[in-house]
Amino acid sequence: MARVPRDLRPLLAGVTLNQMVQFPQELDRTFAALADPTRRAVLERLGRGSASISELAEPFGISLTGMKKHVRVLEDAGLVTTEKVGRTRTCRAEPGRLDDVQLWTEGYRRMLNERLDRFGELLERTKGVQS
Amino acid sequence: MARVPRDLRPLLAGVTLNQMVQFPQELDRTFAALADPTRRAVLERLGRGSASISELAEPFGISLTGMKKHVRVLEDAGLVTTEKVGRTRTCRAEPGRLDDVQLWTEGYRRMLNERLDRFGELLERTKGVQS
Repeated sequence: MARVPRDLRPLLAGVTLNQMVQFPQELDRTFAALADPTRRAVLERLGRGSASISELAEPFGISLTGMKKHVRVLEDAGLVTTEKVGRTRTCRAEPGRLDDVQLWTEGYRRMLNERLDRFGELLERTKGVQS
Repeated sequence: MARVPRDLRPLLAGVTLNQMVQFPQELDRTFAALADPTRRAVLERLGRGSASISELAEPFGISLTGMKKHVRVLEDAGLVTTEKVGRTRTCRAEPGRLDDVQLWTEGYRRMLNERLDRFGELLERTKGVQS
């Protein structure tokens, strides 16, 4: 299974976060798919085990058609895979595309922290000059 | 500065990821704001230092009105703060809301990994039985 690359050094060499992720074109779709509470809850349910569309629809109290739409969005975003056997479509959580979301978010967080650290150092040095 | 809470034990006690984040109502908006390449690039630019709307608009080759809209979306999502002094609106990166995005994503990743680990263990045990 792919793990999130923890090496964020390229950032320091002027490489942008968007250039660092594996599928920048897909990142929009992945973030957009996560911007819905039902879809996040569906992922969480699938994180505990595969399920059919009707098994997903029931506890959320939404129609099969409604759930199919949500699953399609998650599938297009690469967060879920589905397989139809007979009349049942089984949905599985697909971890791969999550790497880019984590890579972007962690890289951005790192930038903000480093900036705050530099600001802190500057404050320390200014104090040193004043005292 | 708020750090991402790394303790994901509540997940094991049946607490949902949505219940673990601080502002579940806001998570939709935060994810949606990140689902655009210009907005992610604006955040990255602001991660390097504060900037006015026109300083942001120029390198992206988009209109002031267009950039104002993007900044408004980021501001509504709690990812940016702005301050108007005279005729200039200065934009700053706001790290707080990122915690929930990271918490949700890491929690979900943890769930998937644990499931794969359990699956791996099961495979190992099955092998043991067969040999």
